[in-house]
Amino acid sequence: MNTTDKVLARIDANFADAQARWMDWLRIPSVSAQPAHAADSRRAAEYAVAQLADIGFQISVRDTAGAPCVVGHHPGPGGDVPHVLYYGHYDVQPAEPLELWTHPPFEPTLVDGPHGKRVTARGAVDDKGQVSMWLNAMRAWHAETGTLPCRVSVLIEGEEEISSINFKPFVAANRDELRADVAVISDTGMWDIDTPALTAGLRGLVYFQVDLRAANRDLHSGMYGGSALNPINALVTALGQLKDADGRVQVPGFYDGVRDISPAQANQWAALGFDEARYLRDIGMTTPSGETGRSALERLWARPTCDINGIWGGYQGPGSKTVIAAEASAKVSFRLVPGQDPEKVVAGFKRFMQDHVPADAKLSFQLFGCGAGLKIPTTDRFVQAAAKALEAEYGKAPAMIGSGGSIPVVETLLAELGLNTVLMGFGLDDDLVHSPNEKFEVRCFHKGMRTHARLLGALG
Amino acid sequence: MNTTDKVLARIDANFADAQARWMDWLRIPSVSAQPAHAADSRRAAEYAVAQLADIGFQISVRDTAGAPCVVGHHPGPGGDVPHVLYYGHYDVQPAEPLELWTHPPFEPTLVDGPHGKRVTARGAVDDKGQVSMWLNAMRAWHAETGTLPCRVSVLIEGEEEISSINFKPFVAANRDELRADVAVISDTGMWDIDTPALTAGLRGLVYFQVDLRAANRDLHSGMYGGSALNPINALVTALGQLKDADGRVQVPGFYDGVRDISPAQANQWAALGFDEARYLRDIGMTTPSGETGRSALERLWARPTCDINGIWGGYQGPGSKTVIAAEASAKVSFRLVPGQDPEKVVAGFKRFMQDHVPADAKLSFQLFGCGAGLKIPTTDRFVQAAAKALEAEYGKAPAMIGSGGSIPVVETLLAELGLNTVLMGFGLDDDLVHSPNEKFEVRCFHKGMRTHARLLGALG
Repeated sequence: MNTTDKVLARIDANFADAQARWMDWLRIPSVSAQPAHAADSRRAAEYAVAQLADIGFQISVRDTAGAPCVVGHHPGPGGDVPHVLYYGHYDVQPAEPLELWTHPPFEPTLVDGPHGKRVTARGAVDDKGQVSMWLNAMRAWHAETGTLPCRVSVLIEGEEEISSINFKPFVAANRDELRADVAVISDTGMWDIDTPALTAGLRGLVYFQVDLRAANRDLHSGMYGGSALNPINALVTALGQLKDADGRVQVPGFYDGVRDISPAQANQWAALGFDEARYLRDIGMTTPSGETGRSALERLWARPTCDINGIWGGYQGPGSKTVIAAEASAKVSFRLVPGQDPEKVVAGFKRFMQDHVPADAKLSFQLFGCGAGLKIPTTDRFVQAAAKALEAEYGKAPAMIGSGGSIPVVETLLAELGLNTVLMGFGLDDDLVHSPNEKFEVRCFHKGMRTHARLLGALG
Repeated sequence: MNTTDKVLARIDANFADAQARWMDWLRIPSVSAQPAHAADSRRAAEYAVAQLADIGFQISVRDTAGAPCVVGHHPGPGGDVPHVLYYGHYDVQPAEPLELWTHPPFEPTLVDGPHGKRVTARGAVDDKGQVSMWLNAMRAWHAETGTLPCRVSVLIEGEEEISSINFKPFVAANRDELRADVAVISDTGMWDIDTPALTAGLRGLVYFQVDLRAANRDLHSGMYGGSALNPINALVTALGQLKDADGRVQVPGFYDGVRDISPAQANQWAALGFDEARYLRDIGMTTPSGETGRSALERLWARPTCDINGIWGGYQGPGSKTVIAAEASAKVSFRLVPGQDPEKVVAGFKRFMQDHVPADAKLSFQLFGCGAGLKIPTTDRFVQAAAKALEAEYGKAPAMIGSGGSIPVVETLLAELGLNTVLMGFGLDDDLVHSPNEKFEVRCFHKGMRTHARLLGALG
């Protein structure tokens, strides 16, 4: 039995403890979007510090202008070993609408599913569950060998769900301390429960709140309807023109730099056998609703999008109120692909809105995120090492997939530290990430821990 | 001194008591749109019953499927006198947004204004203040003569602000009891503080809530953006097409039956000297926002409109949430002019929405109001009597105006009871009806009471 096998046996033997630590972390409602949870953010950070201090890390909670970061270092065994930076985030999305949860979002609960037990909670998978996998893999190595097989730094932030607004300056200010040979992140998914995956491309994100103000007060629609600007009508008229009938985004310059995928890429994705009808059926839909003339995986992994994530204004209570509101607001986001310049999308959206509202409409914008899309080089030796660890654990090679989501931190690590990132995640498509009843399969958690332990061993 | 003059002197002498009764009524938060205020509705009805029982009415609170009605009868002096039905409503609009009130909406407060004292409260003018005028005019007649100068019935409902949903069946069920020679309503405005007005035309109202459901749950915009139907995008895309660039409503058949105003009517309205620039400036706007090629008064009094009164869906909290919501909703209303068929507008809007949303969008509609526009014959003898009472009080003849608002009850009284209605109101354009800081000028209240006393005297 080699050392890695002993570590794996230890993971299996101590599984209950690892699961308990994961669930304890989930009890802390570290919702970064809601200022009322600031103290919970700090508690969640301190929880990670305690875990890593246990296994020999020099580690502390470090202040930023927003939620704190956790930074720590472990020297490893010494000698000529790689230096790996593990990144994760302890913050979670808001749990609302609360009434749709079958169990309270911050009381993690073990429930039965088709793949065995699963844990349901906000953050079950994104990202506390995935971070817990490598925390526990390191714990097992430390318990077995008194050290880690390679040099390790960790960086766990608390604002990933609000576009990592203070993360980039923090990394820039601590560039020397955070240098490493490669970054490893578990915040992505598998192809399916039996097929592991490495993510080789990510979409970027530009996220706006736009407020449109009209009259200086709410108005009676009888006395002003037909003469006074209605801000809701004005806002929906502008936002309603964001896409044409083919689903193409009408923001000027939006498609600049967007390239069609290569025939080789198209073939590789076609070979994955994505079942679009089932993907839609799972969410209660029958008809694809994206850009016409593009395959489902292309739309998700290689095409930019525009979604209105929230909208509000005027009377929203029961019954009727004949009011013309003074203002209306929306949250609007764009997923970007490699080649698009986020700054250009920001400027283009502002111009689009100004061009599509009437004279008296007063627009204001808040920008909550501005990150580019990214491609990961799959020939990198660390990506290859991760692929081998996955193959050893699952008995088959990982799929090299894209991701519709955004992890702007990957761009920051590349820009600020020159690091490539291995995106090795264990989520499933039905994990209900960002939705009520988010869950993570216990089987994924367990095999994820084992795979992380294998990767650490391989890097040593 | 004739009897009417004695009654007017009594009104002046007892003014403080009348004002106190008006303000007491305003303390009851009888918000018909909000079920939590059902008990307050009943209290507000009972308050009116107590006032009228005091002065010899046979009166009671009468149940409906919703908020109760107040119905009462006074035989008058006997003999060949007209029988007048006074209609009013004790319910008020929701007071939200509460933070914009300078005084609490249900703690009526006397404040100074350019025309002397005013009372600020929800319902100050609409309609408790205006009803209080005729309640107190009747009280003065009763105190002076021991009876009223003519036969009087009163009908005060509690759901006017939610489109009188149970009023029509109530009137139909009590047709014999409610018959009279004419109806009098004070729920409209003056031309300005020195110029009285009678309202000779009203817009109708069709009011919808439309809900659009897409996926069976909230989705992550990274994993589904670009493939899954976004209900907010779908809703704004449909609603954004409700009007064309000239402000014309695109609902099929919407303008059927709408007639241009006669040159005589246009001249009469032009002679009123409406100051559109000031009307807009008062609400913080500079540019008219209605149908192109129509005058301001024409747009308000003779053209139908479409306004979105409320909209909501998805994430509305601080910061960002990358979610695709499961549903989105809006409140949409249409002001109708005489000639339009409200049922046709209802069917047309439903068809418009169905035609403008994608295949997977599930629409549902709730109808909160469906009333036609109406013209009042100004040659009616009761309208002429009201004009004389106004002229006696103000020293000038009233303007014959239209109204942008809707009082569907006028249509009900005509259809069910065959009654014409005298619309004699004392509100001002800056009363902030339906807005925060609604107010009613004490001077308008006082002269309104006196005018109602004169009209009662003239009818006797």
